[in-house]
Amino acid sequence: MRILVLGGDGYLGWPTALHLSRAGHEVGVVDNFARRQYDYEMGVDSLVPVCQLQQRVRVWEEVSGLRLATFVGDLTDATFVSRVLREFRPDSVVHFAEQRSAPYSMIDRQHAVYTQVNNVVGTLNLLYAIAEIDPTIHLVKLGTMGEYGTPNIDIEEGFIEITHRGRTDVLPYPKQPGSFYHLSKVHDSHNIMFACRIWGLRSTDLNQGIVYGQETPETVLHPDLATRFDYDGVFGTVLNRFCVQAVVGHPLTVYGSGGQTRGMLDIRDTLACVELACTNPAEPGEYRVFNQFTESFSVGQLAEMVVDAFPGRVEVEHLEPPRVEKQEHYYRAAHTKLLDLGLVPHLLNQSTIASLLAVADRHRDRVDPAAIAPTVQWRSTASTLFTAGSPVSAGSRPTGTREAETSEA
Amino acid sequence: MRILVLGGDGYLGWPTALHLSRAGHEVGVVDNFARRQYDYEMGVDSLVPVCQLQQRVRVWEEVSGLRLATFVGDLTDATFVSRVLREFRPDSVVHFAEQRSAPYSMIDRQHAVYTQVNNVVGTLNLLYAIAEIDPTIHLVKLGTMGEYGTPNIDIEEGFIEITHRGRTDVLPYPKQPGSFYHLSKVHDSHNIMFACRIWGLRSTDLNQGIVYGQETPETVLHPDLATRFDYDGVFGTVLNRFCVQAVVGHPLTVYGSGGQTRGMLDIRDTLACVELACTNPAEPGEYRVFNQFTESFSVGQLAEMVVDAFPGRVEVEHLEPPRVEKQEHYYRAAHTKLLDLGLVPHLLNQSTIASLLAVADRHRDRVDPAAIAPTVQWRSTASTLFTAGSPVSAGSRPTGTREAETSEA
Repeated sequence: MRILVLGGDGYLGWPTALHLSRAGHEVGVVDNFARRQYDYEMGVDSLVPVCQLQQRVRVWEEVSGLRLATFVGDLTDATFVSRVLREFRPDSVVHFAEQRSAPYSMIDRQHAVYTQVNNVVGTLNLLYAIAEIDPTIHLVKLGTMGEYGTPNIDIEEGFIEITHRGRTDVLPYPKQPGSFYHLSKVHDSHNIMFACRIWGLRSTDLNQGIVYGQETPETVLHPDLATRFDYDGVFGTVLNRFCVQAVVGHPLTVYGSGGQTRGMLDIRDTLACVELACTNPAEPGEYRVFNQFTESFSVGQLAEMVVDAFPGRVEVEHLEPPRVEKQEHYYRAAHTKLLDLGLVPHLLNQSTIASLLAVADRHRDRVDPAAIAPTVQWRSTASTLFTAGSPVSAGSRPTGTREAETSEA
Repeated sequence: MRILVLGGDGYLGWPTALHLSRAGHEVGVVDNFARRQYDYEMGVDSLVPVCQLQQRVRVWEEVSGLRLATFVGDLTDATFVSRVLREFRPDSVVHFAEQRSAPYSMIDRQHAVYTQVNNVVGTLNLLYAIAEIDPTIHLVKLGTMGEYGTPNIDIEEGFIEITHRGRTDVLPYPKQPGSFYHLSKVHDSHNIMFACRIWGLRSTDLNQGIVYGQETPETVLHPDLATRFDYDGVFGTVLNRFCVQAVVGHPLTVYGSGGQTRGMLDIRDTLACVELACTNPAEPGEYRVFNQFTESFSVGQLAEMVVDAFPGRVEVEHLEPPRVEKQEHYYRAAHTKLLDLGLVPHLLNQSTIASLLAVADRHRDRVDPAAIAPTVQWRSTASTLFTAGSPVSAGSRPTGTREAETSEA
């Protein structure tokens, strides 16, 4: 198949591109390097050094003999989006190219507006370009399990059958997202569902859980193929961050009681799920939702697992919760559709955590402890970011750079 | 109370401002005249001549002795929004200031993006300004019954109790909006609900039905106080349009079978509902939804009522449906919350239609028959607009003018 990976320079976009390339697909990568720009804005950096896209692509060709097409540009530029689709003529478009950090979206008004405009307009442009150029292109869109929030009933995969006053219908699952970022994904989902209805487009919305891990079978083939690894308070995801904290002797920072429970998955399963979605496309006119995670854990459980796996002493520190979310809640979410398509999950165990700790240990000299604390407060309309120990007020949105991967910070 | 009416120069915003003013409230009006700009873009005009805002405000003072504060500017300009809230210090903000036509949002990509960015960013700016300046300000937001679509179960007011696999929760009612405009209102609703949750804001979301009528007790006091009356294929709403068609001898244009059923209300009830929402505010932190309509009718029923009321012969013409919507469907929607607050509805009857026909007849010389046909096709990504008999391609979005009233075209 011909598969275009939008946001293909990011944490998940890059290893997804390599995985699909090695699996025999013709792969194109689109990025505007917004994710790299956020690092400049925040004064932080990936724990693992990452090469520039052009260098990565060169090394991949040397290592594998396989070529990746590259396109540099912004999805909010409709002309660019049309040009790329016309040139590459994909069978599937995998769309990671959104601002994907909840804390980043909650910094202040500018960052909230930037996140929603960037994500919603990029996806609208994509929908129009697909409808105009080739409505059979299958859009594989990265959503998030965070769209659902934490209802007191089971979470289904996108739709729920409701019987009400003696009548029954299958309706979109009600959404209770917890940040302006998560809201942007809900807006996208509604827009995509509508585009499938009126134009007969086909789309799979992957409501992904929190991803952990950094190495994949392809990225380990050469140091220049590594993908990024974020541990900071804005872009770092929970398990990755805990492993870095353990290695540098920092207490594991649990927000509140740690009862918050979320669906999670191994980075290698992300790649497998995306490929399964591409090779088993939605029908014309179909909008379908897969819940893309393999196991649920509470934040407290994850902290315990890292404490157990780490060959030394680790403290756990409970911080005042920066987010507005339930500390203790019911959580049970369906996730059978990808298993039905053949997904064989990598479940979280001591050896997974040991390999994450090893990655963190190899790069421990690059850790900036000041970047770890949560600096963005949900109840504030203008958080002050602290980087490298000194206060830096929230910058305005990065100009000309509007794209990042979806991996749910 | 001190009440700020955003979009206060529009079809409903203007009579709402007058109604609230006469009811004894201190009223401020905010507008950027985007609705007037759309007329230039489309080459159409209100059937009833409307004065400029400054003249209307002068005449209102002469007629009533009451002053309206005016603010000219754009909600997508956050500095302007903050300045107005700081200067006027409202108790309630009534927010009509959005692009409100479904066909307009479906013209092409630019109009879809404009509608969603304009509406979502304007509302985000407002939420941030309220949170920062005075979180006790009550936001009365105009939404639409079209957010719900036409589910096969009863529509409730914003939330629904769902029992699923033995557990129960009250969740946001699932949304199935039918245009990029309706989608923008769904996005707004989710954003507002979240802002109430994290910042303790208070908001009432008025999911309004289709409004008919043109005269209110205040607008009839002087010709210069008239509000606009749209009959064109893009901004005209169904009953208003039918009355104009009857008067000029044009067949009533029913889209498809005419089985599409919608909640509707008299323009005078809109004013009463908005006042009831303001004077009975939501609690701090509360996001509540009122379904703001009084009766449901199918399009075919409305056509029949106009045929019966018109003192002459009227044809009904069934057009190929331009929208993607169910022609025949179940429709039953709750609307008791405003009645519980004391709303006494003006129900639709022969005399209401007679008075609408009289308005149309007074201005029949101003009707442009070429403006009536539906020119925007939902299944097309780029509709060509026909105005005054000659094709005009869809313009790009109006610059610097981004605001209009919500009355559900």
